[in-house]
Amino acid sequence: MDVCDVLRMNGGNGDYSYSNNSLLQRKVISMTKPIIDDALTNLYSAMNFPKTLIMADLGCSSGPNTLLVASELVNSIDKIRHKLGDAESPEIQIYLNDLPHNDFNNIFLSVSKFQKNLTNQLMANSSSSSCYVSGVPGSFYTRLFLRKSIHFVYSSYSLMWLSQVPKMMNTNKGNIYMSTTSPPSVIKAYREQFQSDFLTFLKCRAEEMVSGGRMVLTILGRQSDDPCSKECCYVWDLLATSLNDMVAEGLIEEEKLDSFNIPQYTPSPKEVSNGVEKEGSFVIDCIQVTEVNWDACTDNNHSLSEEDAQGYNMGKCMRAVAEPLVLSHFGESVVEEVFERYTKNIKISMSKEKAKLVNVTVAMTRKE
Amino acid sequence: MDVCDVLRMNGGNGDYSYSNNSLLQRKVISMTKPIIDDALTNLYSAMNFPKTLIMADLGCSSGPNTLLVASELVNSIDKIRHKLGDAESPEIQIYLNDLPHNDFNNIFLSVSKFQKNLTNQLMANSSSSSCYVSGVPGSFYTRLFLRKSIHFVYSSYSLMWLSQVPKMMNTNKGNIYMSTTSPPSVIKAYREQFQSDFLTFLKCRAEEMVSGGRMVLTILGRQSDDPCSKECCYVWDLLATSLNDMVAEGLIEEEKLDSFNIPQYTPSPKEVSNGVEKEGSFVIDCIQVTEVNWDACTDNNHSLSEEDAQGYNMGKCMRAVAEPLVLSHFGESVVEEVFERYTKNIKISMSKEKAKLVNVTVAMTRKE
Repeated sequence: MDVCDVLRMNGGNGDYSYSNNSLLQRKVISMTKPIIDDALTNLYSAMNFPKTLIMADLGCSSGPNTLLVASELVNSIDKIRHKLGDAESPEIQIYLNDLPHNDFNNIFLSVSKFQKNLTNQLMANSSSSSCYVSGVPGSFYTRLFLRKSIHFVYSSYSLMWLSQVPKMMNTNKGNIYMSTTSPPSVIKAYREQFQSDFLTFLKCRAEEMVSGGRMVLTILGRQSDDPCSKECCYVWDLLATSLNDMVAEGLIEEEKLDSFNIPQYTPSPKEVSNGVEKEGSFVIDCIQVTEVNWDACTDNNHSLSEEDAQGYNMGKCMRAVAEPLVLSHFGESVVEEVFERYTKNIKISMSKEKAKLVNVTVAMTRKE
Repeated sequence: MDVCDVLRMNGGNGDYSYSNNSLLQRKVISMTKPIIDDALTNLYSAMNFPKTLIMADLGCSSGPNTLLVASELVNSIDKIRHKLGDAESPEIQIYLNDLPHNDFNNIFLSVSKFQKNLTNQLMANSSSSSCYVSGVPGSFYTRLFLRKSIHFVYSSYSLMWLSQVPKMMNTNKGNIYMSTTSPPSVIKAYREQFQSDFLTFLKCRAEEMVSGGRMVLTILGRQSDDPCSKECCYVWDLLATSLNDMVAEGLIEEEKLDSFNIPQYTPSPKEVSNGVEKEGSFVIDCIQVTEVNWDACTDNNHSLSEEDAQGYNMGKCMRAVAEPLVLSHFGESVVEEVFERYTKNIKISMSKEKAKLVNVTVAMTRKE
């Protein structure tokens, strides 16, 4: 499986699209806003009233969150500019990056409306910032931009995705992710893949960013030192349970399940800071751990009971994220059944306990 | 009709896609290569061995020509660099711009293969240029880029498209473009729309380009001073004939035809140079008129007679360009019939005489 070809959020605007199932990710974006504002304020002051600002959102996906981030960045800059008493609004370039299979057409159709809304908002605030948007297809584990060209890098809920499924010496029998029953070699392979990918990511960004440039990364992670901790693995355990049940019922071949592993790693804050220190080009300004309940993806626009709605929505949220992976590995014939069972398992689990996702947010500055 | 929403080349990779019907446009690109090479050589020398070069292709469309242009630009730069004895390859950023409905997803899926091929080609030439590609959705009659950020602007077969259908005081009865039977007020409306759009285009680029930056534009145009000259109007006359026939047969309502006009203007070299002089930010380095036969869009991969193939292919080429306009105005039910008749008219005409398209290419430099 080539992750670049397979990993993407569900496109379009349908019921299972990422576009319609990304409230949880939106919540996380708004939770990290104070850190972004701090980083931008420091950047803006250090740049001494810049005339142009170049920013990148890496792993921007496709949906309302994509241009929401862009809009928050521009509005933050405008507030900072007012606060610091800069008379002239800077021109802002925002690069939206994701893998080539991301639905960029969908984003691009909203860009002109986004720019108009932004102009109106800013005019109400007697500002006149212009914001230019462009799309950059490619893996953020490669170079994406010219050397020393970027002032601010942002990424939310993307860097836990690995560049490939870790190469394993032993089969991760009955599992699809790290689990308490995974062989130690599997855990090691996952950890090393993360370390290598994160190092590559930092090296690429170090080349692309200007001295003094800021970067804020939010990564789906964990608090514990144990990579098999329930806080990060449970959500995939529930999918594994569904798949194992279908193997037991003869609906999926056992070998198919044995060869399926999710290309993700949910790091601890320590692993993140170790990675940054090892690479050496950045100084960490702050690192923060936050939690978000699974029910953060529940909206109120339906007729289900609250409990059913929560499970149903977290199921849809996970489907929007994982369907392309499941589809490409197990084929179209079983996809509906897999996600029906997965959603049921999520519902049952949520009725028993309040599950949470852990987010690691790190802000850093490119050294001189 | 909002041109931004309607004007686009046929997307995808199907039989009538622009992607599979753009040989003529490719021929034009290769015809203008010497002018591009000259402009790039002058730019490169003037910049005194640049470390980064930022280029934009405006109206890039979607298909093999899109990345062909990018590839030619990078290869040209590499040859120039060798010739001038610069040891280090510059990093190159290429912005691909088109209207938001352009099929950017289709381009983006080819970018990583394009970058790999380019690396291999350059390595064979012991170079190591990197080329970063990004997509910019929006009308080139608005600002698209940060101020003073672009070194080289290229556009081929795009600037004849107007930002809107000219506002007409009289109906352009029986016609869909300027014609010898059009009222003078229609011709005037077309001319003024072009003058206004071209001025806006130049003003925007003047703000975005660095001093000394180069721009090469190839516009579908005409030699004659008469805007109703056959060289530029005949290809649309043949479509008008098809539509008029269908009106006569009751297949299309007369009012529908009366309100349909192609948002295009094919300028003379003089109109182009007057526009540049009037705007005032650029010096014209050269202006060239070339011709390309309609049969330039004929490939040899089919079983038709040469004559039939020529008509068939020019028909497909025009369909790839005009179908979205016809579809949005006349509706899906008549599209097949319209283009069947149009292709037949093109075939008959090509069997009688060798028709040509006229291209106006202008190279200019942004003043200090």
